[in-house]
Amino acid sequence: MGEVNIKKLAYELNLSAATVSRALRDSHEISAETKMRVLEMAKRLNYEPNPFASSLRHQKSKTIAVIVPEIANNFFSLAINGIEEVARERDYHVLIYQTHESSKIETSFLMRLLSGRVDGILISLASEAVDKENFKEVSKKLPIVFFDRVHDDIEGVKITTDDYDSTYNAVQHLVENGCKRIGYLRALDTLSTGKKRMQGYLDALKDNNFPEEPALVMIEGEKKDQRYSLIKSFIEEQKPDGILSSIEELAMPCYYACKEVGLNIPKDLKLISFSNLTHAELLNPSLTTINQPAFEIGVEAAGILFKIFNKRWYEFNETIVLKSNLIKRESTRGNF
Amino acid sequence: MGEVNIKKLAYELNLSAATVSRALRDSHEISAETKMRVLEMAKRLNYEPNPFASSLRHQKSKTIAVIVPEIANNFFSLAINGIEEVARERDYHVLIYQTHESSKIETSFLMRLLSGRVDGILISLASEAVDKENFKEVSKKLPIVFFDRVHDDIEGVKITTDDYDSTYNAVQHLVENGCKRIGYLRALDTLSTGKKRMQGYLDALKDNNFPEEPALVMIEGEKKDQRYSLIKSFIEEQKPDGILSSIEELAMPCYYACKEVGLNIPKDLKLISFSNLTHAELLNPSLTTINQPAFEIGVEAAGILFKIFNKRWYEFNETIVLKSNLIKRESTRGNF
Repeated sequence: MGEVNIKKLAYELNLSAATVSRALRDSHEISAETKMRVLEMAKRLNYEPNPFASSLRHQKSKTIAVIVPEIANNFFSLAINGIEEVARERDYHVLIYQTHESSKIETSFLMRLLSGRVDGILISLASEAVDKENFKEVSKKLPIVFFDRVHDDIEGVKITTDDYDSTYNAVQHLVENGCKRIGYLRALDTLSTGKKRMQGYLDALKDNNFPEEPALVMIEGEKKDQRYSLIKSFIEEQKPDGILSSIEELAMPCYYACKEVGLNIPKDLKLISFSNLTHAELLNPSLTTINQPAFEIGVEAAGILFKIFNKRWYEFNETIVLKSNLIKRESTRGNF
Repeated sequence: MGEVNIKKLAYELNLSAATVSRALRDSHEISAETKMRVLEMAKRLNYEPNPFASSLRHQKSKTIAVIVPEIANNFFSLAINGIEEVARERDYHVLIYQTHESSKIETSFLMRLLSGRVDGILISLASEAVDKENFKEVSKKLPIVFFDRVHDDIEGVKITTDDYDSTYNAVQHLVENGCKRIGYLRALDTLSTGKKRMQGYLDALKDNNFPEEPALVMIEGEKKDQRYSLIKSFIEEQKPDGILSSIEELAMPCYYACKEVGLNIPKDLKLISFSNLTHAELLNPSLTTINQPAFEIGVEAAGILFKIFNKRWYEFNETIVLKSNLIKRESTRGNF
């Protein structure tokens, strides 16, 4: 790759360094013909401007940031693939950051990004209580698009799925297959995403004339290593015959807990979970899932960010809702 | 967060902007007492220098890059978690890039990174044929540490696992449980990682006096969407009674293919796979895996990168090998 700088380009082209520099900056002082020659040589020699210096000049980094809670989550890795596809077409780089659900880490990333490292941000919020003021400041300075994990009190462009309908329909499916005591594994309760899922569950119970039993809602613990024991106690004490898990990380512990407690899925307990678990079909038993259109969410969110860059997007506060899909498998089979 | 810049700091401190700027640059013209006052105020007001400007000055971005083939792979997401833990302790940011196994994308990332965007690189190579010359250039300019996916012809510091021993022992386990025709799903064959795994397989067969049958080695196709049909034909035509998959992405299609062809795992066909599939235990049947110490590899690789930064690492060309672990589960059970 060698040391290709402006001097080297100038030498190869038999031009002055100042002329090359102006041509690369697309200055009106330079003829179109010369500009073309300079760009061709720059391309041929793989000339790369120093990204820091060029960012200072143009305020363009040709880079976007994606901030997600966890990359080891099938929903987010699919959404990132969608974002990357759109970015690649436009020759943009994608930087991936993971917050591990920490609002502190999230804020620290945002602070850094504010200073010109990227041209825009795609974010799915951490589940920890959100600092809303931060986002106001950020969105004044950098284009930002929210996806999946959003917050009603934070204004902005948002791409979500039909969280309310998805849980409502999932509960309906459990009722139709014979469940009488339907538990809900609640998460993301600081976010609109989590609130809508919870409301869908509550309304579906009500519409089926089920009594409201707060004890059937298990709230996720702070620490991940407590998840398993929490779920095990929940199953033993509340004896649900159906469970709807609002995030995929809470569904797997149900399998382990049922094994240990000696319950058969789906005979003794039926299970449904959000969202895109890759191998749901190969589990024992295969798992009924609410599949979110993860890849499409990524494509949509990135598409809007580029429209904002190109001043072809006018709504500051708009929510676009894509539809999820209930995929029925063995874990909710009826007829016993 | 507001607009905290040097002017604002100067105003709050009742100093001139030039004095504040010099204090932040640690200039000898400014007294230690004043420097302290400036730094305290900068901290209190969350002052963040423009990273581009400050990088030009110090050539330090306090950022490291991790380049991996896929984030939606349990091995890589665990390794990244290990890297992030080390980086967080040192107040470094981690940028994650995925190459999707493309050497072209890999090269494009490296080119970009060369120009000062990060202080160092941790990389697990793409499986596509590697451009070795690129890495020579990169390692002259930026500290780089290779992990897991490495190449013998590229010099550098490398953290790998005992790939040869792992496949050798896995084949031994299949033989002990009664397999007579052991197939191998080969991948990563351009990399040392893949070559060592393959050699372990071949040597174990030889030591058990099995005939060498090239047809029992299935080479991964170029396109991911051909994987399933390739594996299905392989199982139907070669009729292996044991399969060792050298990457996790090839193990899941075996489950689907056996279902379709009507073979029972483990009765008709026993299956082992690399590497850290999170839910291997919950699959039907549970899957015997070669677990690599993924998190530890990340910690080790990042630790060495920081030693290089601090000039406490002297070997340019060294390979550190961590041990993997064969976890025996239902998919390789004997006694039928």
